[in-house]
Amino acid sequence: MELYALTPVEEISRRISKIQSMIVAHGIDAILITDNTNIYYTLGRVISGWVYIPAKGNPIYFVRRPEGLKGDNVCYIHKPELIPAELSSRGYTLPGTLGLELAVTSYLTIERLKAVFPECAIADASKIMREARAVKTDLELKMLRQSGIKHARVYSRIPHIFRPGMTDIELQIEIERISRLEGCLGQFRISGDSMELFMANVLAGDNADNPTPYDFAMGGAGLDPSLPVGADGSIIKPGMSVMVDANGNFTGYMTDMTRVFSYGNISEEATRAHRCSIDICRELEKMGRPGTKASDMYEKAIETVKAAGLERHFMGYTQKAGFIGHGVGIEINELPVIAPRSRDILQENNVLALEPKFVVPGVGAVGIENTYIVTSGGLERITDSPEDIISLE
Amino acid sequence: MELYALTPVEEISRRISKIQSMIVAHGIDAILITDNTNIYYTLGRVISGWVYIPAKGNPIYFVRRPEGLKGDNVCYIHKPELIPAELSSRGYTLPGTLGLELAVTSYLTIERLKAVFPECAIADASKIMREARAVKTDLELKMLRQSGIKHARVYSRIPHIFRPGMTDIELQIEIERISRLEGCLGQFRISGDSMELFMANVLAGDNADNPTPYDFAMGGAGLDPSLPVGADGSIIKPGMSVMVDANGNFTGYMTDMTRVFSYGNISEEATRAHRCSIDICRELEKMGRPGTKASDMYEKAIETVKAAGLERHFMGYTQKAGFIGHGVGIEINELPVIAPRSRDILQENNVLALEPKFVVPGVGAVGIENTYIVTSGGLERITDSPEDIISLE
Repeated sequence: MELYALTPVEEISRRISKIQSMIVAHGIDAILITDNTNIYYTLGRVISGWVYIPAKGNPIYFVRRPEGLKGDNVCYIHKPELIPAELSSRGYTLPGTLGLELAVTSYLTIERLKAVFPECAIADASKIMREARAVKTDLELKMLRQSGIKHARVYSRIPHIFRPGMTDIELQIEIERISRLEGCLGQFRISGDSMELFMANVLAGDNADNPTPYDFAMGGAGLDPSLPVGADGSIIKPGMSVMVDANGNFTGYMTDMTRVFSYGNISEEATRAHRCSIDICRELEKMGRPGTKASDMYEKAIETVKAAGLERHFMGYTQKAGFIGHGVGIEINELPVIAPRSRDILQENNVLALEPKFVVPGVGAVGIENTYIVTSGGLERITDSPEDIISLE
Repeated sequence: MELYALTPVEEISRRISKIQSMIVAHGIDAILITDNTNIYYTLGRVISGWVYIPAKGNPIYFVRRPEGLKGDNVCYIHKPELIPAELSSRGYTLPGTLGLELAVTSYLTIERLKAVFPECAIADASKIMREARAVKTDLELKMLRQSGIKHARVYSRIPHIFRPGMTDIELQIEIERISRLEGCLGQFRISGDSMELFMANVLAGDNADNPTPYDFAMGGAGLDPSLPVGADGSIIKPGMSVMVDANGNFTGYMTDMTRVFSYGNISEEATRAHRCSIDICRELEKMGRPGTKASDMYEKAIETVKAAGLERHFMGYTQKAGFIGHGVGIEINELPVIAPRSRDILQENNVLALEPKFVVPGVGAVGIENTYIVTSGGLERITDSPEDIISLE
């Protein structure tokens, strides 16, 4: 199969050019990447191997697997030690400074690659790739919008799969099923070695207040100490909120969306907190545009929470999360980060999820999460789904 | 909650003692671990933080999240730079040589930890942890047996969820559902940054011959170039084999099992290859015991395959895998590795999966996979389920 058979060549060129302008801006000569997420970005498909991108000229795809890829810039090798000779034979000058993915590749792998290029100074390519991926191309935006449409369709079916007496995990399993039938790929790509979640975080009632080791907006005890997050087997009862934050990977690009369901009425305080979350989203939608400081968005959210007297409940009760939003794309935690000390500034075609959430003891978690494209005219919501608390009756 | 509330203290002590004897054998003074898999092993639960294990004395659990853990050797910190002072204040001498998880932790994280201990020589703790985890305790064996029982129960239900006209992914989604309802945790822990799979590899017909970038025994094109492995949407038709290799993580410890289903009869050649896979398992079961060389098991399998004239089909047709078995436990690819150049020697209480498989063009993948405990008397099969090709009619 032709290397570029699955993605338009112009799209690949556009991404490579963007990466190359960043390589130049960082004053380095080339990068060599091997992380699946970054390889998928530079090629539109996952391969096992190494992608060499010089500051100028064509990239070379060094492929270990799968068999059968064809193209001028495909080179099959079984170990990275063969790369320098292959580069030289193709007329490439070896780089003076080489970028490697220091933030996402293991120490031993990096040491091995450093030894392959003993004359090179080493720089961090993870940062370059993270910055390149944060500003989406038109094709990427299209794939994100497609995920958003399917994601919303799954949520619209949730009330119909609920049966009284269900546990949180039983509901989650049926959500997983309809999600997969809708085309969800399942894989949840997340940066950071210690982050884990399976398909969804479904929190019923007070389980929402159980702290988790993971750095997610919400917690939950989980079903097992090997994966202590999310649903814990609680029966869904009247008066509880049921927060659903489910995997939105339908295209290789993920949207992030949360909605709250309730079986019977929930307390006035919880309803008010949910309303406050929607208000915050409306305010941040007005504010967010290219040039907006991420930290200003966080501050604006906090102001609104304070004015409503809901600080104690914001972003957790027993344990609090330190952010209210994050970029999304191939991974669920991309740039920008919407947090108090973030230095990120919104750029056109960033895609970000905002999730101002509350935990109200005795009720559970409330609040919404939407995914937005940063356009010159403001934030475009791509998770188009009713935001009020949805009845399961 | 007490730190050890979820696992018997004696079990934790047993594991820590084993690690400590290895620390001594490697001539180092302490290890500091932060990988979820290894933390789960040393504590029986996942936390976010760092576990310090000296060659002698009690481990210290440096916890970042979750809130609320109690115990003499719990120390809450928000960054690793605080570790040396905390160790000193507890009367620990700082190590001369410190083991860090060089094979599984990112380069930048290791560089940061090295800077926290500027006087220390650094060694690799990944290897120690991998070796410690390869020999299971009685409690771990019990958890693996439990996974095996549930895993087999899921497979026994597969013929009942099949409907004619189904695609491979539709069947997979229903397998995922019954598996989750049986208690499967979903999370598929695998060592190596570039390995990915969602819940199961279900291969119908010739899709089994599509090569994948991943280092699994079998491939499949997958549904999307972002995750090119497994089911590709093929309709299951008479004469095709349907190989199901589904996630067996029911306890935090995973069994690995493959069975083949068929809708209508499959060719004589494919049936014969399936029989050959069962024969290989029977032979390796007789051979495998403490002291057996992993490479000898591989050679024995190859002999049997050659005698049957099935070499061309063994472990793939267009692309071949280089191993026929692997250890399992918290991760799906633990020690020992059953491969031609493996230097591993079976030890009592290793747990391993054997998967001699074949791809027959025009039919698909055939062969079985079982998980075994290495006992002094031989291999004990813990995935107890019929091995012949199972009819979907």
